[in-house]
Amino acid sequence: MGKPVERVAVVGAGVIGSGWAARFLAASLDVTAWDPAPGAQEKAHAAIEAAWGPMSRRGVKPGASPARLRFCASLEECAASADLVQENAPEREALKQGLLERIDAANPDALVASSTSGLLPTKLAERMRRPERMLVGHPFNPVYLLPLVELVAGEKTSAASLEAAGAFYEAIGMRPLKLKRETEGFVADRLMEALWREALWLVNDDVATTEEIDAAVTYGCGLRWALMGTFLTFHLAGGEGGVRHMLAQFGPALKLPWTRLVAPELTDALIDKVAAGCQVQAAGRSIKELEARRDAFLVDLLALVQNYWPEAEGRPGRL
Amino acid sequence: MGKPVERVAVVGAGVIGSGWAARFLAASLDVTAWDPAPGAQEKAHAAIEAAWGPMSRRGVKPGASPARLRFCASLEECAASADLVQENAPEREALKQGLLERIDAANPDALVASSTSGLLPTKLAERMRRPERMLVGHPFNPVYLLPLVELVAGEKTSAASLEAAGAFYEAIGMRPLKLKRETEGFVADRLMEALWREALWLVNDDVATTEEIDAAVTYGCGLRWALMGTFLTFHLAGGEGGVRHMLAQFGPALKLPWTRLVAPELTDALIDKVAAGCQVQAAGRSIKELEARRDAFLVDLLALVQNYWPEAEGRPGRL
Repeated sequence: MGKPVERVAVVGAGVIGSGWAARFLAASLDVTAWDPAPGAQEKAHAAIEAAWGPMSRRGVKPGASPARLRFCASLEECAASADLVQENAPEREALKQGLLERIDAANPDALVASSTSGLLPTKLAERMRRPERMLVGHPFNPVYLLPLVELVAGEKTSAASLEAAGAFYEAIGMRPLKLKRETEGFVADRLMEALWREALWLVNDDVATTEEIDAAVTYGCGLRWALMGTFLTFHLAGGEGGVRHMLAQFGPALKLPWTRLVAPELTDALIDKVAAGCQVQAAGRSIKELEARRDAFLVDLLALVQNYWPEAEGRPGRL
Repeated sequence: MGKPVERVAVVGAGVIGSGWAARFLAASLDVTAWDPAPGAQEKAHAAIEAAWGPMSRRGVKPGASPARLRFCASLEECAASADLVQENAPEREALKQGLLERIDAANPDALVASSTSGLLPTKLAERMRRPERMLVGHPFNPVYLLPLVELVAGEKTSAASLEAAGAFYEAIGMRPLKLKRETEGFVADRLMEALWREALWLVNDDVATTEEIDAAVTYGCGLRWALMGTFLTFHLAGGEGGVRHMLAQFGPALKLPWTRLVAPELTDALIDKVAAGCQVQAAGRSIKELEARRDAFLVDLLALVQNYWPEAEGRPGRL
């Protein structure tokens, strides 16, 4: 595992697997792939071709080529010569355990990463003889453009494997987020899932249509979230007093039925953790400086995104 | 209420109120303001000055000027001659009710909008003699740049008032989302609050720091959300089968503990509503076309946002 990753195996080549293949190929790596589903190979090639245009605009590495992808007839052949195996099977624990067991047998040395959205690596690696080189590397769709990848170690994952995987993903232009501990849904999916479930309640209860709910995101908070998450956003909402003032002011709203989700108690310990975190994020900048930076970004973003709004396509503006 | 809005009164001139004042002024309107807090006037002028630069880059209307703001010594003077009164007092029901009662007495004709984040207009208007012209017009920070405004009618709000307020906000460049019915937290805050409470749990349980949680948004889902909300995102995640296929595949995950929020039952009726909504949003475009559009946007957005990432400021890249 000390050696650099030059060959990558993609196990399962659906939307996520073919997205990984495209990203690996753009980084000028050799890629093998395996997917037992009928027509998977053709679909993957088409997906990679579609991705190549946008990726080229971002910039692909010299020597990179979709031709460096080789589909294999068996999982074992696919995995055998890889330095890193990326598993992208459907989200069923037993299925993934079986595949990881076969990968383990076919290749004793490679790093093995699962793209699971929220299953626990300790469970997934249960049938591997060498679980120390297994971890979760959870990407986001479209994999070939979004930088985030969540790294989650299982109980037996070695520090060296976590380190090597992080360095590899970073080298191919990603942002590895190393989780402090295993938890169902990790971080990003916990956030997205909370919003998603609330959105389903709003549709279920006939408060709004899917289109209206999406518009509430894209014309509002979604624009801010491309630059700063909720914590830094609320740090700014607190004015000069920052997030501590904001928590004092909006803390009581955590008791109101503004979502179906029950909030944690706003203890002093929690307030301290939030305030300390936001201090790190502010990186010495004043609220005024952060606001000016946000506004400059939003002006640029609005000029960009309005080209994608319905009116730009000659359709009546929705909302 | 049939007459066009030319004079606007801003009641409460903190972060939200001064944001509204900036937006109204940029639309070449005359604005009166009132805020009893010490130093409020100076702070508001400074905030409007800071906002004027970014707004100018977006484009302000001919004749627009910050000098067309006049601070008044009393609420009554501020409200008296306005065509629309925008109330931005702290989020306390009794306080707002009292202010709205005084606005009602001072000006019998104006549209009256409250910026409340989630209180119900029927309750807020209880002490008004003419509640038919009162509604919620809930903006998002920074008010002078973000287009979304949620319009919520109370039980006594007239259709004409709702219509007039919608037309006015649209005329000043906003996207009015008219809620089907009153509900605590409306739509956008229900979504944001769910994500916020989940984020607080993650910090509380030491799964991640505020910085890591924000990064999980800004390097992942936040980039997508600037263009498309969760429903359209999941419509694409379903491949050719769209959101209906996605719900079949990820429906079981709604039972997993991927958030503290309990999901609604995925009934056929709910699936039908979601699928029908996504059809409207897709506006006849195939999944492939939607993907190509998303990717083109993401490439542009990444080129833009990377100028705001830590490395662009010479700081070590976080994550």
